[in-house]
Amino acid sequence: MLATGAVPARPPIAGLEKLGPRDGVHLLHTIGDMHALAGGLQQRQARSVVIIGAGYLGMEMAEALRTRGVRVTVLERLPQVLPATLDAQLAAQLEETLGRHDVEVHTHTPVAAITRDGAHLVVHGPDATTWHADLVLVVTGVRPDSRLAAEAGLRLGVHGAIAVDRHMRTSASGVFAAGDCVVTYHRLLGADTYLPLGTTAHKQGRVAGENAIGGRRVFAGSLGTQVVRVFDQVAAATGLRDAQAAAAGFDPVTVEAVADDHKAYYPGATPLRLRLTGDRRSGWLLGAQLLGHVGAEIAKRIEILATAIAYGATVEEISDLDLSYTPPLGSPWDALQQHAARAWTTAATHRPTRTP
Amino acid sequence: MLATGAVPARPPIAGLEKLGPRDGVHLLHTIGDMHALAGGLQQRQARSVVIIGAGYLGMEMAEALRTRGVRVTVLERLPQVLPATLDAQLAAQLEETLGRHDVEVHTHTPVAAITRDGAHLVVHGPDATTWHADLVLVVTGVRPDSRLAAEAGLRLGVHGAIAVDRHMRTSASGVFAAGDCVVTYHRLLGADTYLPLGTTAHKQGRVAGENAIGGRRVFAGSLGTQVVRVFDQVAAATGLRDAQAAAAGFDPVTVEAVADDHKAYYPGATPLRLRLTGDRRSGWLLGAQLLGHVGAEIAKRIEILATAIAYGATVEEISDLDLSYTPPLGSPWDALQQHAARAWTTAATHRPTRTP
Repeated sequence: MLATGAVPARPPIAGLEKLGPRDGVHLLHTIGDMHALAGGLQQRQARSVVIIGAGYLGMEMAEALRTRGVRVTVLERLPQVLPATLDAQLAAQLEETLGRHDVEVHTHTPVAAITRDGAHLVVHGPDATTWHADLVLVVTGVRPDSRLAAEAGLRLGVHGAIAVDRHMRTSASGVFAAGDCVVTYHRLLGADTYLPLGTTAHKQGRVAGENAIGGRRVFAGSLGTQVVRVFDQVAAATGLRDAQAAAAGFDPVTVEAVADDHKAYYPGATPLRLRLTGDRRSGWLLGAQLLGHVGAEIAKRIEILATAIAYGATVEEISDLDLSYTPPLGSPWDALQQHAARAWTTAATHRPTRTP
Repeated sequence: MLATGAVPARPPIAGLEKLGPRDGVHLLHTIGDMHALAGGLQQRQARSVVIIGAGYLGMEMAEALRTRGVRVTVLERLPQVLPATLDAQLAAQLEETLGRHDVEVHTHTPVAAITRDGAHLVVHGPDATTWHADLVLVVTGVRPDSRLAAEAGLRLGVHGAIAVDRHMRTSASGVFAAGDCVVTYHRLLGADTYLPLGTTAHKQGRVAGENAIGGRRVFAGSLGTQVVRVFDQVAAATGLRDAQAAAAGFDPVTVEAVADDHKAYYPGATPLRLRLTGDRRSGWLLGAQLLGHVGAEIAKRIEILATAIAYGATVEEISDLDLSYTPPLGSPWDALQQHAARAWTTAATHRPTRTP
């Protein structure tokens, strides 16, 4: 049974190979890395940290470091934060949230080099821009740890992850694998992806374990459902984004809607932003993204849609779901139904009028 | 188009027919009733209220009146609070919550009569027990307002509600009806029920309206999904309860589980109590009830299960759903999966061992 997991990606940054925790440059992977980081912050009495990478870890560490009163700058190579999760429109709103909490965010900002300047570190961006910091955190994603499998001659798949079938069998008889080291079958694409998520790892591990002792369980597949809390906001997504859906041969239509999480006459209502992607031809719901306040049940709302996608629901059927209602917590038509699903149906059936 | 709604039930309580808002006895139906109640509380400088009925309205009014500092006693004829929604085990926990907020609850307590004693009211329970109060609120449910339909010769169905098909057509050609005055098609039972809920009324109204102008929309049906907040607790339910499922010919197995709403190492985790009912023969998920803290995303969690039921999910498939995970908001296996679905599978496949 191979469960070797993932290792942090090491981006091609000049100087990174020579710098480590002793110099104030940290990667985050193990509990030991966390202790090293906490120790480094204290020993250096760090007042400023540059975070390279605006994925989950970058976002969560930005919040954690601001809570400690540290000045935080996030540098992201791509044009937005959470590029693997959110469309640009929602990411822009999350960048405002970060700004409101005094996190300085620079997108479109690849890091070329890290150098030392006495006890400080200097991060070199494009056009000779530099940032000085007491500590640098490099959190630019992970890659599968498939070295052992490769050396043993096992077949590798997408992203260099260990190839497995839906029984979690590798190419070698009697060898199973699961978790962040393997490819993940995608329920909508019907194909392998690399989606290293804790939820998926647990499910694959259960399938692999059961089958390794003679079971016949099949991994149902992932939809890439994910959620992250950033300060008082929660961002969540499931399924395919517009460009992914188009690449997979669907005819995607994506709409955006804003709606209150519950009836506005009841105190405490907050706005949700929803993006819904469906296939114009079949009407199938393909994916969704949600951004809203931490009290707005964002995580479980995205899971309603993940459940619907798993059963091949059309976008229109979302409006038929018997969801619950009480004024402090919802609406007679949930935001998913009234605003998102109906807006999608209107957009998908709209035929542009020809000029006469 | 008939949309006559429901009217408050008037339980067979001696004296009730002669007493009204001027005497301090209130029913709650219209906005006018609410203003009358608010006025009555103020004019009488009410310090004590007896609420007859422990359904949604009774629970919500108990909270509202405690917030105003009024002493509240709830009398319920049946053995538990929220008898139409929760099993006794969860209701007992909710009764503890009510007690913690100084709401006095008496179940098994039918009210025989209400009398006046000067400016006060006396509520007479069983065995010559009495409760004195400045004001009495009678909230014992509703019945369909189908008088007009009956007088017009339209066919009535269960509970005396107006009979409609899934196109919301009544027995009279060209006459549609929707909302709390009509029978409601139940998606799991495949039969008519009386389930007067705001969510259902909106959906039926949309179907009726569209069909009245020549559309061909079909009402998908209800699962009786419902939720109520009572102080800091939220109770929610969907689908069939054990006895309902047995009466409908299923072979129900019901399990109960307690689980944290999110990873306990992350601050703020609270316990969820879940009850899950499935059919032993088919493995289908039939119903669920949830009780937990207001921050624990109870409403949307029950809706995940309502969505799964709508698509004929088995209980075992719940564990295959790709739900989201982040430590402040969930677990790699959600409580619905790890605790409820697995406990059910174990219980449903358990065969009692014969004594040798």
